[in-house]
This record gives sequence, C-alpha cells and structure tokens, in this order.
Amino acid sequence: MDVSVKELLQAGAALTDKALERLLPSPDTPPHSIHRAMRHSTFAGGKRLRPILCREAARMVAEGALPEAVEDLGAALEMIHTYSLIHDDLPALDNDDLRRGQPTCHVVFGEATAILAGDALQTLAFQTLGGIDCPAPALVAILQELTGSIATGVGADLPGGLPPGMIGGQVMDLESEKTRPTAELVERIHRAKTGALFTASVVTGGLLARGLVQSEPGHSRPAEHDTIARLRIFGEKAGLAFQIVDDVLDRTQDSAQLGKTAGKDTATDKATWPAVYGIETSVQHAQALIDDAFAALAPFGEAAEPLKALALSLTARTS
Amino acid sequence: MDVSVKELLQAGAALTDKALERLLPSPDTPPHSIHRAMRHSTFAGGKRLRPILCREAARMVAEGALPEAVEDLGAALEMIHTYSLIHDDLPALDNDDLRRGQPTCHVVFGEATAILAGDALQTLAFQTLGGIDCPAPALVAILQELTGSIATGVGADLPGGLPPGMIGGQVMDLESEKTRPTAELVERIHRAKTGALFTASVVTGGLLARGLVQSEPGHSRPAEHDTIARLRIFGEKAGLAFQIVDDVLDRTQDSAQLGKTAGKDTATDKATWPAVYGIETSVQHAQALIDDAFAALAPFGEAAEPLKALALSLTARTS
Repeated sequence: MDVSVKELLQAGAALTDKALERLLPSPDTPPHSIHRAMRHSTFAGGKRLRPILCREAARMVAEGALPEAVEDLGAALEMIHTYSLIHDDLPALDNDDLRRGQPTCHVVFGEATAILAGDALQTLAFQTLGGIDCPAPALVAILQELTGSIATGVGADLPGGLPPGMIGGQVMDLESEKTRPTAELVERIHRAKTGALFTASVVTGGLLARGLVQSEPGHSRPAEHDTIARLRIFGEKAGLAFQIVDDVLDRTQDSAQLGKTAGKDTATDKATWPAVYGIETSVQHAQALIDDAFAALAPFGEAAEPLKALALSLTARTS
Repeated sequence: MDVSVKELLQAGAALTDKALERLLPSPDTPPHSIHRAMRHSTFAGGKRLRPILCREAARMVAEGALPEAVEDLGAALEMIHTYSLIHDDLPALDNDDLRRGQPTCHVVFGEATAILAGDALQTLAFQTLGGIDCPAPALVAILQELTGSIATGVGADLPGGLPPGMIGGQVMDLESEKTRPTAELVERIHRAKTGALFTASVVTGGLLARGLVQSEPGHSRPAEHDTIARLRIFGEKAGLAFQIVDDVLDRTQDSAQLGKTAGKDTATDKATWPAVYGIETSVQHAQALIDDAFAALAPFGEAAEPLKALALSLTARTS
C-alpha cells in the first residue's frame, strides 16, 4: 500500500475516533449499561472507512478546505454502520460471537441491551446530523440521502421510488437463505446491504461541502449537480467492489487473519459473489468496477487522487 | 367522554392511518417480509395519540389553519412509537405475545424480521421527516427535538446535556428489575420512556406550525419562544399523567379489556406508580398533573380547548 494512503487511513481513523469519543455519552453517565454497550461496539477496532470516504469526498468538493463539520457527519455514518453490525450479530440474525476479534455486543451485555444499543446508535446518528453546523437546506438534503440509503426502499410518494438500502439488503439476505443465489440477486443484495451506505458516505460528504461553500459570503458558483451525480457513481462502483473483495477474502483467508469466523458464508450457502462467479472472475469484476469508479471522477483531476487511492486500497487489501 | 373529543380522536386516527398508508411501503413491494411486518404492527389498532396531540398543538399555534405537513409529522411520530413497541415485545425484552389483542410482530414474522422491521420504522420516521414540506430551519429544529426525545440522554457537547429519552427509559426499566423501585426512579423512568416522546409530539407540532407561519409572505410576528416552552410543560405533565393512568389500569382491569396481558407489571414487580404510591394516591397525582398541564396553556384561551380536552380524555379513559 502506498504510504500516503496509509497515512490518510490512519489520520482519518484517529479523527473519527476523536469525534465519536466526543459524541457518544460517557460510560459513567446513566443509564450505564447501554452507554457501555454502545461504546463497546463503536470502539471495537473498525477501520472507519465510511467517515474517511466522506471526508475525502468533502475535501474534493470543497477544493482542499476541509470543513470541521465533516467529522460529525463521518461519526454519524459510523454510528449507523455500528448499529447495523450489532443487530446483524444477534442470535436471531447471524448469531456471531466474534467481530474484529472481540466478543460481540450481545455476548458481553446480553441481547436486550444489545438491541437497545443498536436502536440508540441509530437515533444518535440522526441527533448528531441535526446538530451539524451547516446551512439547514444542505442538512435536510443530507438527511434525505442518509435515510434513503438505510431504508427498505420505495417511498410510496416518490415517482419510481428508491432502491432498497441497508436494511432492505439485510432482509433480502435473510430471505435468500431459502433459495439458491443467482448472480442478479447477489448483486442486488450487495448494492443494498453495503453499497447504499458506502455511496451515501461520499454523496453526503459532497452535499456538506457544497452547502458550506455556497453559504460563504460572496459565493457565486452554480449548484453543480453533476458533482453529486459523479460522487454517486463512484460510491456505487467502489462500494460493490469493496463487498466483492470482502466475499473473496472470506473464502481465501482464515479466521485469525479476518478477526471473525471465516468461511461462514460458504458454510451456510449464503448469497456471495464467489459462490456465483468463482474467485478469479470475482477479482476481475472488482477491478473493472474500480476502473468505472475512477472514470466517474476524471473531471476532478488531481483533487480526486485521495478518493481514488482509497478505493484502490480497499480492493487491494488482505483483511 | 365529551362527543367533540370522541370526534377529534376518531378523525385524528383516520387521518393518521391515511398518512401511514401512503408513507409505508406496499406489502406487495419486495422485500415483502419486512414490509408486511412493518404494516402488521403499524396497523394493529393503535389510538394514534401522539399524532393527534401533534396535530392539535399545531392547530393551536397556527391559530386554526392546520398545515397539511402535520399529517406526515404525526405519521413519523407513530412510526417511532410502533418501532419501540416491536422491540419492547421481543423475547429478549418484555417477551409479549399479544399487543392490542393481536399477535406481536415476532410471533407472526419471527425475531429476525421483527428486529429489522423496528429498525426500518425508525429509519422511515426520519426519512419522512426529511421529506416534510416546511422551511429547512424548522425541519432541523424538529429533527433535534425528536431525536432528543428518543435518545439515551446527555449529548456530550451540550451544557448540562439532555435528560434520557425513550430508549434511556427502556434501559432504566430493564436495569430497575434487579432493584426495588423508589418513587424517584419510577418518575424518572416514566418521564423518559413515555413522557419524552409525548412531549416531543406537542413540541414538534408547535415548531412545525411556527415555522410555516413565519414563512408566510409579509409575516412579522416575533418568534414566540414562550409558546414552545408552554407546550413542553403541557406535554411533560400530560404525558406523566397518561403513564400513571396506564399503570393504574394495568392493576385494575383484566386482559380482555386491555388487549394485553394484564397484571404483568405486578407479577414481575416492575417500576410502576401504584407499586410505590397505591391506586388512590396515583389517581390524585394524575389529576394534579392535568391541572398543571392546563395552567401552562392558560394564555392561549379558547384555542387551547382541543388540547385540554384531549389531555382530560387520556386520564379519564378505562382502556
């Protein structure tokens, strides 16, 4: 891995941790059990990829000047990600005892507290959003983007509706356990379960930076809808590539390297990319998707380099 | 019950049902299982008290002209309430098989889908908020108020922090099962678990109406912070009275009248008002709280009559 990417990842993770430390209730504040449970899972060694992608997207759109508010937005994204992991690990869902080499939330705090800790992290994410220092219209646009990426899809009053987001993907995953996975289904699940929040991370970073730039005194630049559309394509392609690599790693690595129970997807015949395409074709797909992601950012030139380097590192990883 | 209150409740419930029908994904839209589970619990005969309180608070502040957007806000409040009931009923929490005379979500759809259906209803509530047609600053104020009423309390960067909201109350309830309930603890749990969302229902109704009134062309009225403060007192007092009456009914009614397992609170020695004060004193407390709630609305004169009548009906009920 290129040294500068390594620094980007390390610095980004440290900044996210600092924001989360500030935003999560102290473990000494009652009710203690839930605050300790929320912190247990939030500070369990996550890579903070979503906040880091959000920050770099914001930096690209703001042309270098990184708004401080992006730390809170990144923390909100990580809270959503963490809540989904806590609930996914529950006995009624994936029944995982280990996550990133540590005992999962319900193992340490019991199921009741784990369910409520997940609920509270979702709420805290939106509470954090509501407190972000940026113009209200940008904040509403961020709220719409983020909720759409978590929800089950549709939106009855929207023409055509929205595709399923994270929870929709989790449900499709559950429903698919009874059937043999097809290529189309696997892609739909991946796009929803991981891809949607991945995409929202870069898109909301862009929306925040654009909202702040436009609120500057004397600002006269146009709205640049194209920027958001390009960030969306980048997020979708890179997110899918990331999940494919995740599936491949689950097949080729052992538990010690992954920090979780390896081969679990194979064992339960879950909908994964290698199960449908095999390892080699899966790796090729991931590379082609990264090429597409790069193409979407071409007009931004040098400013897009950090985002591109990040995307590359996500597919070249070994854990 | 006064006929006009009955009409208010019936019309309010019908309008809420209509909004929820429009906002919840169709049961025929994939992923089916979760959309059916979300609808099962949302349309299980709830009284829609929170949306009705929200509507009447908005009507009072808007001086009669009821904004259409209040239906979506009310639906969002009901989604939050419903999600909390789904998770509260889970085997790991209260383990309830019946709610309002119907089988609970996990009994019909299984635990995994019930957990995700609760999660999705919380997300959909905030997605609905994000789509409300009102000025963005009012929407951000509503987001802050609502999330604060659901969260576990504090808010590290706020001076003094916020008191625990709905989830905080659920956790305190869980934690208190190991100890003998004191009067102070019972009040704190009630204020958090039921009172906070009750209060947010009237406060957000007021914020919405105020935001819309202020955005009218030629508007020159001042911000009227006093209005929101008075709605907050009304909500806190009436919410606590409502929960006390709920506790009393659980002691004095049988399961057929309540549509849920009666006496359950007694059986498990849970923190309830009658357990600490006895039935008679509890009823007197509820009446005194309603007097305080009425006093807070005194400056609004005639315009406050619907809200006051609602509060009275909530404490005079028998189921």
